Amino acid sequence: MAGPLSDEELAKIDAYWRAANYLSVGQIYLKDNPLLERPLTREDIKPRLLGHFGTTPGLNFIYVHLNRIIRNHRANMMYLIGPGHGAPGIIANTFLEGSYTELYPNIERNRDGMKRLFRQFSWPYGVPSHDAPEVPGSISEGGELGYSLLHAYGAVLDNPDLIVPCVVGDGEAETGALAASWHSNKFINPITDGAVLPILHLNGYKIANPTVLARIDPDELESLFKGYGYKPYVLEGDDPKDMHQRMAEVLDTLYAEIQRIQRHAREKNDPTRPRWPMLVLRTPKGWTGPKVVDGKPVEGTWRAHQVPLEEVRDNPEHLKILEAWLHSYRPRELFDANGTFREELADIAPKGRLRMGVNVHSNGGQLLVPLVLPGFRDYAIDPGVPGSKQVSATRVLGGYLRDVMRHNLATKNFRMFAPDENASNRLQDVYAVSGKSWDAKLEPTDENLSVDGRVMEVLSEHLCQGWLEGYLLTGRHGFFSCYEAFIHIIDSMFNQHAKWIKSAKELPWRKPIASLNYLLSSHVWRQDHNGFSHQDPGFIDHVANKKADTVRIYLPPDANTLLSVADHCLRSKNYVNLIIAGKQLAPVWLDMESAVRHCSEGIGAWDWAGNDDGDPDVVMACAGDVPTLETMAAVTLLRAWAPELKVRVVNVVDVFKLAPVHVHPHGLNEEDFNRLFTTDKPVVFAFHGYPTLVHKLTYNRANHANIHVHGFKEEGTTTTPFDMTVLNDMDRFTLALSAIQHSKAARHRRDDAEQRFSEVRQRHKLYVSEHGEDMPEVANWKWTAR
Amino acid sequence: MAGPLSDEELAKIDAYWRAANYLSVGQIYLKDNPLLERPLTREDIKPRLLGHFGTTPGLNFIYVHLNRIIRNHRANMMYLIGPGHGAPGIIANTFLEGSYTELYPNIERNRDGMKRLFRQFSWPYGVPSHDAPEVPGSISEGGELGYSLLHAYGAVLDNPDLIVPCVVGDGEAETGALAASWHSNKFINPITDGAVLPILHLNGYKIANPTVLARIDPDELESLFKGYGYKPYVLEGDDPKDMHQRMAEVLDTLYAEIQRIQRHAREKNDPTRPRWPMLVLRTPKGWTGPKVVDGKPVEGTWRAHQVPLEEVRDNPEHLKILEAWLHSYRPRELFDANGTFREELADIAPKGRLRMGVNVHSNGGQLLVPLVLPGFRDYAIDPGVPGSKQVSATRVLGGYLRDVMRHNLATKNFRMFAPDENASNRLQDVYAVSGKSWDAKLEPTDENLSVDGRVMEVLSEHLCQGWLEGYLLTGRHGFFSCYEAFIHIIDSMFNQHAKWIKSAKELPWRKPIASLNYLLSSHVWRQDHNGFSHQDPGFIDHVANKKADTVRIYLPPDANTLLSVADHCLRSKNYVNLIIAGKQLAPVWLDMESAVRHCSEGIGAWDWAGNDDGDPDVVMACAGDVPTLETMAAVTLLRAWAPELKVRVVNVVDVFKLAPVHVHPHGLNEEDFNRLFTTDKPVVFAFHGYPTLVHKLTYNRANHANIHVHGFKEEGTTTTPFDMTVLNDMDRFTLALSAIQHSKAARHRRDDAEQRFSEVRQRHKLYVSEHGEDMPEVANWKWTAR
Repeated sequence: MAGPLSDEELAKIDAYWRAANYLSVGQIYLKDNPLLERPLTREDIKPRLLGHFGTTPGLNFIYVHLNRIIRNHRANMMYLIGPGHGAPGIIANTFLEGSYTELYPNIERNRDGMKRLFRQFSWPYGVPSHDAPEVPGSISEGGELGYSLLHAYGAVLDNPDLIVPCVVGDGEAETGALAASWHSNKFINPITDGAVLPILHLNGYKIANPTVLARIDPDELESLFKGYGYKPYVLEGDDPKDMHQRMAEVLDTLYAEIQRIQRHAREKNDPTRPRWPMLVLRTPKGWTGPKVVDGKPVEGTWRAHQVPLEEVRDNPEHLKILEAWLHSYRPRELFDANGTFREELADIAPKGRLRMGVNVHSNGGQLLVPLVLPGFRDYAIDPGVPGSKQVSATRVLGGYLRDVMRHNLATKNFRMFAPDENASNRLQDVYAVSGKSWDAKLEPTDENLSVDGRVMEVLSEHLCQGWLEGYLLTGRHGFFSCYEAFIHIIDSMFNQHAKWIKSAKELPWRKPIASLNYLLSSHVWRQDHNGFSHQDPGFIDHVANKKADTVRIYLPPDANTLLSVADHCLRSKNYVNLIIAGKQLAPVWLDMESAVRHCSEGIGAWDWAGNDDGDPDVVMACAGDVPTLETMAAVTLLRAWAPELKVRVVNVVDVFKLAPVHVHPHGLNEEDFNRLFTTDKPVVFAFHGYPTLVHKLTYNRANHANIHVHGFKEEGTTTTPFDMTVLNDMDRFTLALSAIQHSKAARHRRDDAEQRFSEVRQRHKLYVSEHGEDMPEVANWKWTAR
Repeated sequence: MAGPLSDEELAKIDAYWRAANYLSVGQIYLKDNPLLERPLTREDIKPRLLGHFGTTPGLNFIYVHLNRIIRNHRANMMYLIGPGHGAPGIIANTFLEGSYTELYPNIERNRDGMKRLFRQFSWPYGVPSHDAPEVPGSISEGGELGYSLLHAYGAVLDNPDLIVPCVVGDGEAETGALAASWHSNKFINPITDGAVLPILHLNGYKIANPTVLARIDPDELESLFKGYGYKPYVLEGDDPKDMHQRMAEVLDTLYAEIQRIQRHAREKNDPTRPRWPMLVLRTPKGWTGPKVVDGKPVEGTWRAHQVPLEEVRDNPEHLKILEAWLHSYRPRELFDANGTFREELADIAPKGRLRMGVNVHSNGGQLLVPLVLPGFRDYAIDPGVPGSKQVSATRVLGGYLRDVMRHNLATKNFRMFAPDENASNRLQDVYAVSGKSWDAKLEPTDENLSVDGRVMEVLSEHLCQGWLEGYLLTGRHGFFSCYEAFIHIIDSMFNQHAKWIKSAKELPWRKPIASLNYLLSSHVWRQDHNGFSHQDPGFIDHVANKKADTVRIYLPPDANTLLSVADHCLRSKNYVNLIIAGKQLAPVWLDMESAVRHCSEGIGAWDWAGNDDGDPDVVMACAGDVPTLETMAAVTLLRAWAPELKVRVVNVVDVFKLAPVHVHPHGLNEEDFNRLFTTDKPVVFAFHGYPTLVHKLTYNRANHANIHVHGFKEEGTTTTPFDMTVLNDMDRFTLALSAIQHSKAARHRRDDAEQRFSEVRQRHKLYVSEHGEDMPEVANWKWTAR
């Protein structure tokens, strides 16, 4: 068949592809005899056969053809693959192009290296079967499916010359995240962003079932992608020669179309949303693999999804099929007697930095430019008398973030992300500097929408998280604000990102990337109006389970501490930073210098609030803005009710300060912990989240038995702010009572206090039922110095 | 304009709609003066204005028109709404049709009732603003967006006569779960399942932004839904009279089309996937609300999304607009002097059980038929010598589940759900009885796919979870199996379901529904081959945070205990049951009668495995199958190393047994706990998940300081099964060493043991590096009786 490839080109491309397939099969099956220099025996075969062959020949096919485009156009391409367990193909290709050996010099480009390459794959202390951090050129593991396309879109933001071909598996395409992520094309500026080239790889099967998109009518499939706003191209076939010509042809067309779109947009300064091209590539599952095994069809069926031959070690028939299969790639034509890839074939790969295995964006830390940060002290609120001024902490932060945006407009390496909640979380000041990204239709009433906008808003936590991950992994910075309860939607994406960071840190060639910064606002205590479904502080627990050297959790008690924490987080690398802070009006407790000191300690006694003189009867501890407020109010109640009681107020900003030092690097040593919390005095602890987290972190502290934690105990509804604390026994009255009950010095006031505080809580309940808002004595309460 | 409605019908429908809108606005704003019998004053207005008006007139519009269809055809319809905070509309309509008052008799259908109806809305101790359990006719809260369409599809499974019109908000449509859920139509059998009528309600805005689907070209939108496999109808407009005629017309068409599809399929016995109709309804945001406020356009813009007038209490101008707005619905024409809805208008609603507020499926517990369960003892494995037989626990369970399926085929009230993992989790025996649901194209090589299949498989945890929730909430039973790590994908959906159950339990009229049963297999310890991304046991922690009377967590140590636990869970109601069990070959420890006893206790000493004679030197505790295996192996090591050591083996099946009784109803009382774990002896605890969970549950037990927990500490990769335990210090050698180190009686062996066990771990490491599999002494280890 005629096509753009000369006979010689076609032959070389096919040979290159065969080499990649050979190396892929070798990785899955062989631990020895990599060049088949002797007949294959049981001893050459790995004891466990891992990796998915089904998707791999297709991934290899795309790789070699992208190489041709890169060569012909010196294109800047990073290759993302969604299909799970597809690493054999990427490892094979980066080995062939030489980038693998540059990063892992012990995997030489010869027989020994090939043997090691095969053996290490899915081998203990070797490399995983996914496109994990260990794999050159990867930013998207694909172990958990669904995020490849989001990573691709995140990567091309602000990278106008980058093209990211992204293979979406037809299994992965069924996931929620992936189904929504096709709409990312409405958030791409063709002038200033790069291009994603989605390649839907239809090979028909997932682990045990056909895929939905492979089994709908072709006209439905085409409609679907037109509906998503793409111009779909379709390529289907199984004859390699024919497919090489047609793939070369369609990739020429797709590349030209991307160039045409970008040229038009850039020359005419016309960012109107183009219909970006995408490719539907339909090839057989396990293409080039065994056609029939044990009388059952394999190639092109679900049986080829994982390992087409499973009993190679024990079934001589299978071993023979494997040998024939490997020989079908004609390794002698591909590798010389030393096992080195033949020069004339290696030569068709791109050279140097153009190789996809070392595309600079795929190791984004190399490109990381620190943010230019405004002095956060300039945004400080002067508290006057502590607690006398009410501000929205996140609104104050919004002013700071506006200027972070401003200072980094030139380098274009900072974006904010929110699921339709940026303004709701009070970060709207940024719009004075940059709008919200939008390349769909505009109406005259729209505000702050712009194709140049650097605030990414869409009603999907998945999209925000995925774009941000792609943006960070390619060496930029970001800030994600979200309602606290709904961040659970991306629990699993967070897991995968935290795991990526942990593994990447262990690889010397992976350079550190900017931290993933979460601001959770509209939090559990102030979702009183939105009701129970909006009340969930469990993300802290979720984060706390991850590797200690990867995660940080901050609960700044007021606006000034929030500023200090945010500045710190934006400077950090290779962490996930979780910040929780309210958006409603709330007291400012510390002046800026005290705030900075407090945040750099992470935990500390507020001597100005207590009266313990170094020897408290009770420690009133708190973490989080509402818990701090209730604790401070409890302290004033204690003054009235038990003036003789010596109270220490301890505030925790950095939650991991509570953990033992061997559990988390931020943990207080025993001495400091005991100095702060005493070894024998009652500690009444008001905590933002579920109380058990505090117990989990402090269970082996000397004074643990005396720590009484109050926090969210899953009681909520539509009610008032103060009632939320009452429902969960974290209100000032309960805290004060707890102090009185547990302190020897105040115990004589216990019965009185119990009766009185119970009356107040009753009165509160009647008042809110009657008036629909909090009692003035609670709503207008102000801290007074002693 | 001509149409199906006579002038009189049109007038009544419009009046009914105005009444619903009036009541909706009243709920949002008024706490008094419900009939506007005197001029509106500040005192009539609620202090906090909650609920979203933007979506509500559209929801009401659809409701009144669905009523007409129900009346005309005696249709069996349940109304699901996705848009957030849409409850005012549903409450208004159920009040008008009378179902609200039947369920809440204090909300009478007169002036007083209306006042209470208004006042209670979003009022402390009142009702939430979402379509929460409190709202009649609801099974889908919509507080967290994205699940309405899945609930709708789950509801119509096996309910051939049920039609579920489901309003999808255009904000919600951007979420991952919703974007994927349109494909649910490939899993519906037109003969035996009912019909979902999706209504995409395009009113253009979410909280602070336009919506994507409202801002793409109409031809893209149409393509998108054709691509999803629907036949889209579009209705757009804002003139009420015109819209009433056209809505009546299009609903007549849609209803006829559903009838035609079902009649064809049922008469011809032809389940070929039809192109189900769906409606795109484009109406202004805040339709019928204020057009302009403070000189800015409101109706039809994002300003109408929540509360179009925010300063009603403080801005007399706003108060006037509100009053005029309320009067625009002409309440005098709608309600008589007593505030009772006028008879001739009320009359157009359906009667009795046809009313959507009391559709029997929306309170599914009413329909719940207990499962017919086979005797689980019939599937017992005879263990012979404990631990001598290796079986796949989930495979054994699969036999039982096959017969659960078989016994309930006639009642069609049991389905299994899995994200492409049913067979991978070894539950494939069910296919002998029922295949996998599939109404897309079939190929000759397909196996076990059938349009009648009762196993729901799709590569989306969101879809599985959402369908199952819909199925359970409408009174049926289900079983969800999933890889342990990836269940986090639906963390947030689990949250919302657990919250639903908790709130529904507090409503006497909501009847209990079947529990949501999770089986997590392919768990952290046996994902050695799949690598780090597949290794995460954190879902236990996530579940443990929920309300104690709603959640249960089971870690059966072997096949027989798994059978017993599964039987128990399938009989239970109103819980979420989490079961974690391995699929790989593993020992059977208990004969069936011991298993039943052990499971009914939930925790217990295995006297046959220990030698403590009632007074142990050390307690070796374990929870989970792999931890049990390692503990048993550690016990045999101890026998050799410290024969004099008196060892007690405690196994935990029911994790909440560890919690204090005031924390969880299953918790052991102090006496029993102390009897089992002693008050002063070391406890070496091997736990399936993160070790901190055990500390969190036991921190205030007397012996807590002596409990040393080993579990997953976020160390993983592609390796061998035993190496996973070594990496995380939960291997038999580490457990045995910990016992020796902490027991006074064995302490003299400490140095020896340290050296020797460290050597073994080294040898292990070398062995797996060399051979790629576990040492035979580990892999072939068998328990031997003392």
